[in-house]
Amino acid sequence: MLFSKIDLLDENLRHKPEQYVGISGGIIDYIGSEKPDKDYGEEYYGKGKLLMPALYNAHTHSPMTLLRGYAENLSLHDWLHEMVFPFEAKLNANDIYNGTMLAIAEMIRFGTISFTDMYYMGDEVARAVLETGVKCNFSYGITCFQDECEYGSLRNAKESKKLLERLHNAGDGRFKLDLCIHGEYTSTPRIVAAVAEHAAAEDVRIHIHLSETKSEHEDCKVRHGKTPARYFRDLGIFDSPVTAAHCVWLEDEDFEILLEAGATVAACPVSNLKLASGFANVTKMLEMGINVALGTDGASSNNNLNLFKDLHTFCVLYKCTSSDPAAITPKQAIKCATVNGAKSQGRENCGFIKKGAAADLIVLNTNVAHMRPVHDMLNNVAFAAQGSDVCLTMADGKVLYKDGEYFTLDIEQVIYHAEKSTGDILELI
Amino acid sequence: MLFSKIDLLDENLRHKPEQYVGISGGIIDYIGSEKPDKDYGEEYYGKGKLLMPALYNAHTHSPMTLLRGYAENLSLHDWLHEMVFPFEAKLNANDIYNGTMLAIAEMIRFGTISFTDMYYMGDEVARAVLETGVKCNFSYGITCFQDECEYGSLRNAKESKKLLERLHNAGDGRFKLDLCIHGEYTSTPRIVAAVAEHAAAEDVRIHIHLSETKSEHEDCKVRHGKTPARYFRDLGIFDSPVTAAHCVWLEDEDFEILLEAGATVAACPVSNLKLASGFANVTKMLEMGINVALGTDGASSNNNLNLFKDLHTFCVLYKCTSSDPAAITPKQAIKCATVNGAKSQGRENCGFIKKGAAADLIVLNTNVAHMRPVHDMLNNVAFAAQGSDVCLTMADGKVLYKDGEYFTLDIEQVIYHAEKSTGDILELI
Repeated sequence: MLFSKIDLLDENLRHKPEQYVGISGGIIDYIGSEKPDKDYGEEYYGKGKLLMPALYNAHTHSPMTLLRGYAENLSLHDWLHEMVFPFEAKLNANDIYNGTMLAIAEMIRFGTISFTDMYYMGDEVARAVLETGVKCNFSYGITCFQDECEYGSLRNAKESKKLLERLHNAGDGRFKLDLCIHGEYTSTPRIVAAVAEHAAAEDVRIHIHLSETKSEHEDCKVRHGKTPARYFRDLGIFDSPVTAAHCVWLEDEDFEILLEAGATVAACPVSNLKLASGFANVTKMLEMGINVALGTDGASSNNNLNLFKDLHTFCVLYKCTSSDPAAITPKQAIKCATVNGAKSQGRENCGFIKKGAAADLIVLNTNVAHMRPVHDMLNNVAFAAQGSDVCLTMADGKVLYKDGEYFTLDIEQVIYHAEKSTGDILELI
Repeated sequence: MLFSKIDLLDENLRHKPEQYVGISGGIIDYIGSEKPDKDYGEEYYGKGKLLMPALYNAHTHSPMTLLRGYAENLSLHDWLHEMVFPFEAKLNANDIYNGTMLAIAEMIRFGTISFTDMYYMGDEVARAVLETGVKCNFSYGITCFQDECEYGSLRNAKESKKLLERLHNAGDGRFKLDLCIHGEYTSTPRIVAAVAEHAAAEDVRIHIHLSETKSEHEDCKVRHGKTPARYFRDLGIFDSPVTAAHCVWLEDEDFEILLEAGATVAACPVSNLKLASGFANVTKMLEMGINVALGTDGASSNNNLNLFKDLHTFCVLYKCTSSDPAAITPKQAIKCATVNGAKSQGRENCGFIKKGAAADLIVLNTNVAHMRPVHDMLNNVAFAAQGSDVCLTMADGKVLYKDGEYFTLDIEQVIYHAEKSTGDILELI
């Protein structure tokens, strides 16, 4: 494909008007202000539009789209125990697939082509990912509540091993298996250490929830005499590359641990607000140079998988919590939603527009009232763009969505089956 | 027009599937599950869509769309004094009209049909409002920095009087003139008292900024020995119906003053975050029964006039600031964005779907991935809907926007002229 006369954000997120961008073999093969001689096939006329890196969602639970709007305005305890857990207990493999397909449809529509997922029945998530052309780092949310329990005997540990052997790096690396500890409060030291060892042995990444709520953070200190970050570090988790979701209640030492480990914080501002978890100190993370990426969390605590919404919240929220309207620049924020997310998934050469980089791209229609005038395109992307401005979504050079049309899924069928699954589950509980 | 087979939110925001709604003479004339005998003209087939009240924006500065993305990531002082004021100083009447038209285009697109505006050159705002079919309560942002200054000698006071005589209630009441004190810190007691007196004499509403920033609030206490709310009350402002924007730093007594006066708080959550103003105690306002409405503020501190974005932020933000995920229900929030906003503009019989009410309506396409499944339509509207889901916008029974088409403005011309104005101003400064 050849994008012609299209504005773009280059690898330093500088706005360059009316460029030609040639895509070949899933790679950005040409960028220039002159039309290239080489034939790149279909030409996409991009006048009045903006080509930018596609978005990477660094933390979600994709099948939870089936619970969108299901349980709201409840205390955290009632939400989880009275509503979410009973619903999830009834999910079968088909439901997981249907929920993931709905999630992918929403993500593609709003410009996200890759997501870091934590759930179970990973085969079904992998199936949806491989069919639809998106990218995913999947992990089984391993939990364990009994001290004597062995890692090898846990169902999700067994499933992790199987999927690691079978599907890690499937679809030309699009599907990756990470390992995972769901959280400090849902596991035992023995299991945490075993996950750390397993990840190091297999050279894979680790996905965790970290200090999401104050009680989780404080209880850990009572239980173990240290913060969750320190606890995980002492058990070897940070010996592998880690994506730590939330990180709302970090203490000074915790920031240092994350920085030293080269870990990623998956900030989930909308989820943190909705669940009243608190305000992460994202400005400090960015100042220190921690790799901050952006996550939606699951659809039941957001309730969208539209990362543009999270990007906007990210841009404005932490200005207020740090009492500084100059905090968090659009450039920083857009990097969090793109290249930093790609990094957190171990996807090199992704998340920016540069010759030789993966053609993970989206096109925004900027010729709309709410994106005009253009004093500074980065400001408009960060503060004024809507996910719905996305008019083309491409992963590895393959068009997944264009102008209302999905090319790797049947949207009517996806919605039908997701609603069918939802209805079936509601009848069971 | 007859909406057929359309889901709707009734006057109590209950979701009713597959209804018929007949519009006649700008009024909702029929609602029922049976097709009416009466001929309502054009039939709109609404299967898979949701009819809900249009949105009312309770606080903005519409011509500031021209400054969207102009001055970002600066301290409040530099933003205002180095960037905003010099830009605004160059605005001519035509620019005001062009900026307002751009604002109206964005509002119509995203389902807002009425806005409470504070700016200057109201003739131009009125012209745009009257042409496009939307509704507006306009006020001149009166400021005065010299104690000896007389109200009658202020340019904006004179302009207010003229516009009040000429255009108050023009367009069948669509355009209304409110009176205004820009803020405590930008006025003198003499002028505040004169505005109060003028409003009472003319029986019109008053629009003010109130306790937006901490310094503004605290400085007032030093200057006058009382909070801004008390200061305004003592000078008679609350003897007329008031819309007080922001109200971030209210103290206990201030809440009582607003409640007793029957005033409206125009909460502007996105603007408050972006300018790092702080977190309003909206949950307390709602608990007390204060009329809370929702405002975007100007496009330079938001940067959209898409009230769905503010609705979402409103829904999730105050859960977190009150440490209660059960705080602010979708029903409360949607009321703030609809009927409470209409009330704050003195528009009776607007903001809800009921036989005999004004046909200020929008249609959402809910047959999209991010709005499915539907466990509870209110939850989806509050937490998952995007402004871009609006596929029809109607004010007083007149269709202003449908499926990408604007019926009362030429969107290409609107964008062209707004950009032209912007470019011209940038050349002057």
